[in-house]
Amino acid sequence: MHGVVMYAPGDVRVEERPDPQILKPTDAIIRLPVTCVCGSDLWPYRGANEVNGPTPIGHEYCGVVEEVGSEVTSVRPGQFVIGSFIASDNTCPHCLAGYQTQCRHRVPMQGAQAELLRVPLADGTLVATPDLPSPELLPSLLTLSDVMGTGWFAAVAAGVQPGMTVAVVGDGAVGLCGVLSARQLGAERVIAMSRHEPRQRLAREFGATDVVAERGQEAVARVRDLTDGVGADAVLECVGTDEAMHQAIRSTRAGGGVGFVGVPHGVTLTGRDLFGTMVRVHGGPAPVRRFLPDLIDRVYRGTIDPGRVFDLELPLAEVAEGYRAMDERRAIKVLLQP
Amino acid sequence: MHGVVMYAPGDVRVEERPDPQILKPTDAIIRLPVTCVCGSDLWPYRGANEVNGPTPIGHEYCGVVEEVGSEVTSVRPGQFVIGSFIASDNTCPHCLAGYQTQCRHRVPMQGAQAELLRVPLADGTLVATPDLPSPELLPSLLTLSDVMGTGWFAAVAAGVQPGMTVAVVGDGAVGLCGVLSARQLGAERVIAMSRHEPRQRLAREFGATDVVAERGQEAVARVRDLTDGVGADAVLECVGTDEAMHQAIRSTRAGGGVGFVGVPHGVTLTGRDLFGTMVRVHGGPAPVRRFLPDLIDRVYRGTIDPGRVFDLELPLAEVAEGYRAMDERRAIKVLLQP
Repeated sequence: MHGVVMYAPGDVRVEERPDPQILKPTDAIIRLPVTCVCGSDLWPYRGANEVNGPTPIGHEYCGVVEEVGSEVTSVRPGQFVIGSFIASDNTCPHCLAGYQTQCRHRVPMQGAQAELLRVPLADGTLVATPDLPSPELLPSLLTLSDVMGTGWFAAVAAGVQPGMTVAVVGDGAVGLCGVLSARQLGAERVIAMSRHEPRQRLAREFGATDVVAERGQEAVARVRDLTDGVGADAVLECVGTDEAMHQAIRSTRAGGGVGFVGVPHGVTLTGRDLFGTMVRVHGGPAPVRRFLPDLIDRVYRGTIDPGRVFDLELPLAEVAEGYRAMDERRAIKVLLQP
Repeated sequence: MHGVVMYAPGDVRVEERPDPQILKPTDAIIRLPVTCVCGSDLWPYRGANEVNGPTPIGHEYCGVVEEVGSEVTSVRPGQFVIGSFIASDNTCPHCLAGYQTQCRHRVPMQGAQAELLRVPLADGTLVATPDLPSPELLPSLLTLSDVMGTGWFAAVAAGVQPGMTVAVVGDGAVGLCGVLSARQLGAERVIAMSRHEPRQRLAREFGATDVVAERGQEAVARVRDLTDGVGADAVLECVGTDEAMHQAIRSTRAGGGVGFVGVPHGVTLTGRDLFGTMVRVHGGPAPVRRFLPDLIDRVYRGTIDPGRVFDLELPLAEVAEGYRAMDERRAIKVLLQP
């Protein structure tokens, strides 16, 4: 099969690789009709994370089950399934508490930018859709594997409730999905932080009521202006830099929540940053698995269409151009067709 | 009147000071039958906070209203009242949200180790008891002004719910009140972290089911052992050091909460400390005012007796010995009689 391998920062290639095989009786093999590039793939692509030799890359996936191991009982060949970017058994205490990304047996997924993928812990990880989805649903279903589930968790972790004023730091695919999630959870006002016109437009289409183009302390001041000096009730931090995290905290009212899902790079908080502001902080790798049944239902009912974050589609063979387009912010998110 | 003045680290004196006067129409003057030394008074006493010249000290108080300003309507002379260590108007958006320590017009209290005290924003700050309390209730009512309200907030901020397993880091008066609070809020199991026998005993009397004498990484391992490797559902951080905060976070399960009320001294968290653990963090100067009506009721009904944290009573004139006893951990908390 064809699959993407990252060799070094800036160097991704499609190669002929061996088809994945069932290695454990709890595995499943799925065939991917679509796959994509994640914002977090840009960290190693840009050299911010190390690349230790050629590495199959990609962790967002949905597709049709081809084969299952002897112990798999909850999905069967022919079904269309979606799973999280971290495989989990869904039976350990952390999974039962809804924190499947902290599963005792968790397995980070990789190699999903490919035609076929082996999914460990298939019973715990995969959720089947009601039927074989029509092609136009595929982009939205694919986002549930990571970016939409992550935006949703950011909103849940920030404590978004009906009627609230919510700010979203970050206008990548996750931030935009965060806007959509906040509105779905009943936020009355959603302030999107974005200086890029196409992203501002999509944010508004996803339900943003205000757009703030400033950054850092100026952005904080704008959010304060928009909230009578009080601060937002909930803020979604969808970037992962120190500036974004501090901007999020300072934009939040006392007792309000920051839900943070950007993988932290250089974020440092002092006790006083949290003590003095009295802001609640909660985040981490989103337990997407918790939200999959609900979000699949919302996509099927047509309530949400997060697949609109894909603004560039390319054949898998052109993956290098896909990474470049996202790196240069020419594309919000790139869909790849194996 | 007599009042305590801190001159420098290690140097506290009782002096003759002018009686406080009504300065604003929203002030009240109260006469204090009891007052006390707070663990946070030890920070400047030990030189960890600067002392800028002679400073009247003390911020925990309850007593009988002597006089009120012309605009005060909710309390009147002769009533027994309790207030928070931070005065607040109780009408601004932060107060209405229950975060009175972030009040737009907040005034930190000082000078409460004295016979008389001026309380600004009396209508917002003071809560009257149902009647003039009997002397044996005074110690418990006094704790509501700070340590008991702070322990309560730590438990609320950590998200304590019925049936939970809760750990408490810190065996000072606040930590002990945190144990009591966690049990009142329905915790099934409360693990007190203490290596001091008299404090261990009081922790058990307040409802601790387990005592862990280890510190740091060993304490974390003990909490994990006691919770099948999962971690506590909620942890109260009642110290304020970097070690205590990290110990609290690492003792908590994914999705569990750390309620932190120790004034941070040197606490630094990286984004990954929070991202990797998925622990919720919430804390700050406790909005004691939010809890006063409920806690007064619990004291009057005899449900709680937090006044037992006072294990040394001294006349105000012997305040220097009171500070020494707390500094040397010979006393948990010192009651002063003006």
